[in-house]
Amino acid sequence: MTALKNDRFLRALLKQPVDVTPVWMMRQAGRYLPEYRASRAHAGDFMSLCMNPEFACEVTMQPLDRYPQLDAAILFSDILTIPDAMGQGLYFETGEGPRFKKVVSTLADIEALPIPDPHKDLGYVMDAVSTIRRELNGRVPLIGFSGSPWTLATYMVEGGSSKDFRKTKAMLYDNPQAMHLLLDKLAQSVTSYLNGQIMAGAQAVQIFDTWGGNLSAAAYQEFSLAYMRKIVSGLIREHEGRKVPVIMFTKGGGLWLESIADAGADALGLDWTCDIGEARRRVGSKVALQGNMDPTVLYAKPEAIRTEVGRILASYGKGSGHVFNLGHGITPEVDPEHAGAFLRAVHELSAQYHE
Amino acid sequence: MTALKNDRFLRALLKQPVDVTPVWMMRQAGRYLPEYRASRAHAGDFMSLCMNPEFACEVTMQPLDRYPQLDAAILFSDILTIPDAMGQGLYFETGEGPRFKKVVSTLADIEALPIPDPHKDLGYVMDAVSTIRRELNGRVPLIGFSGSPWTLATYMVEGGSSKDFRKTKAMLYDNPQAMHLLLDKLAQSVTSYLNGQIMAGAQAVQIFDTWGGNLSAAAYQEFSLAYMRKIVSGLIREHEGRKVPVIMFTKGGGLWLESIADAGADALGLDWTCDIGEARRRVGSKVALQGNMDPTVLYAKPEAIRTEVGRILASYGKGSGHVFNLGHGITPEVDPEHAGAFLRAVHELSAQYHE
Repeated sequence: MTALKNDRFLRALLKQPVDVTPVWMMRQAGRYLPEYRASRAHAGDFMSLCMNPEFACEVTMQPLDRYPQLDAAILFSDILTIPDAMGQGLYFETGEGPRFKKVVSTLADIEALPIPDPHKDLGYVMDAVSTIRRELNGRVPLIGFSGSPWTLATYMVEGGSSKDFRKTKAMLYDNPQAMHLLLDKLAQSVTSYLNGQIMAGAQAVQIFDTWGGNLSAAAYQEFSLAYMRKIVSGLIREHEGRKVPVIMFTKGGGLWLESIADAGADALGLDWTCDIGEARRRVGSKVALQGNMDPTVLYAKPEAIRTEVGRILASYGKGSGHVFNLGHGITPEVDPEHAGAFLRAVHELSAQYHE
Repeated sequence: MTALKNDRFLRALLKQPVDVTPVWMMRQAGRYLPEYRASRAHAGDFMSLCMNPEFACEVTMQPLDRYPQLDAAILFSDILTIPDAMGQGLYFETGEGPRFKKVVSTLADIEALPIPDPHKDLGYVMDAVSTIRRELNGRVPLIGFSGSPWTLATYMVEGGSSKDFRKTKAMLYDNPQAMHLLLDKLAQSVTSYLNGQIMAGAQAVQIFDTWGGNLSAAAYQEFSLAYMRKIVSGLIREHEGRKVPVIMFTKGGGLWLESIADAGADALGLDWTCDIGEARRRVGSKVALQGNMDPTVLYAKPEAIRTEVGRILASYGKGSGHVFNLGHGITPEVDPEHAGAFLRAVHELSAQYHE
């Protein structure tokens, strides 16, 4: 394996000293980039893209080629590969969110779900990881990822996206045993999926709990966090002679940071509603923090973006343990020049906070 | 004025002893009720309904007639009456959210906005309040309401509903002076609008900050909470020889409860992501709390609804200062029988927490 030329992302996740605050953007390989849209236009429907390791590698590299400031690459893939591998039949209609051909409604549906084998059933993801890792050639670390069990369960029970998760929540409250069985199967699946990605070359992994923040405080503990804790306890934490940091990101989880920090991850992702300095005071002795600029700030002018970056850096304060990011994914209508201004501001303005 | 036959809602907001925990539901006069849908079908488009005091009174009374457990009535009206009275041209397309004919984009647009006079420009709301109050005849108290300045501003700048408030946030970050002028005009408008409702007979008022929780922690303080504080300081707090309690509800504001509790309201509304016992420990010495069952629990069976009501009551614990409610509005697909089971459970299970 080639030595890493830039490891400040991994160092910050482990709270080791860095020269400047590392930065990447959730959904950095995406529709806001004209080069991504051009690749997409050539390549066909969305799942075919995810299933093609060469394409996944091509679009993963695009933001790195455009923005030399990026300190990490993230696997290009979909969040719903696991339910698809369980036989739910993921598809996308143009202009719509993801849909499943099968919907999980009953205990019998859940009992019938297989646990996917990452190499047999999700080999295309493992191939994408190893292809990207080879192509990166030590430039920056590669992040692998998965959705959280609760987040995956919402899509499987609703049959796609949802505004209020009414079917999933009705199952949770009416039939908690069935929900627990579903989440347990998903936790097993995510664990072996992420371990597969690590063995294929992912140097850090992130669990995206996109919809955990929509649960009540009590339901979050029982139906989302408990399963992420289980996953983390089953992950390979060292590979190629180096720690493999785990980032746990519950969007809307700011109220529960103390308990999330106790769940075994190395770092917590923060959305933008949480003041990062306050978050550091609450949990900073246990974990690193990743975030947390409101992605819509990228619609403002570069000077305003720079001001907001400065405010967040000042709130975090001196020392390592901060990976700069947006509080959620970058959106398709953002001007790529604004994303560049954001990334430059992070490196330029953060040097003063490191020795 | 007729004496109030049931004042436990007002008493709980002021932390005075009650026999059982009072309860009402946000959006209790709404599409989940067949009698509401029948009235709607007769009456024409949505804004015509809001502008007709007889209709507003009719639908306000419907849930009270169906559910004897309801401890408060809330004015039936739209959240966007103020921007409409400012000349923005509110309209609704079937199956769509609210839209405005005019959009606020520039400082000049904002400078041109008038401050509506509640009696001249929003007289239909004042008439609805006095009509409903007369019809209630002391049965339960009547709640008046308004959207918060920030929430109203998002609709005015976006021209309607939005997923990410990109135009409003771009204005906030690029042109904070313009945004402050808009919010200041809205705060003045909301203050006189709510005072008009109080003088017309509203016995408590609620400020709905539906979109404040989408702001960063710093932006929330400066662009939402500051203006709600200003409103509260200008409200009539006593009328007809009785205190007029003010409820402040920021959906997604659980992280900021301490500062919201300092803003001068008598009670805070809580969405369902916040544990109410924890919220009480954080701010309960200053304010009463209203909430906070996840509205999707109403999709579960009555036994599960009852369990969740019991869990929330136990979390709040003994003593007054709790008004039971959902954490957001009841949704159109809920079975009215389930809403009834919810309301009964609150009264039945809460007696043990009061002397």
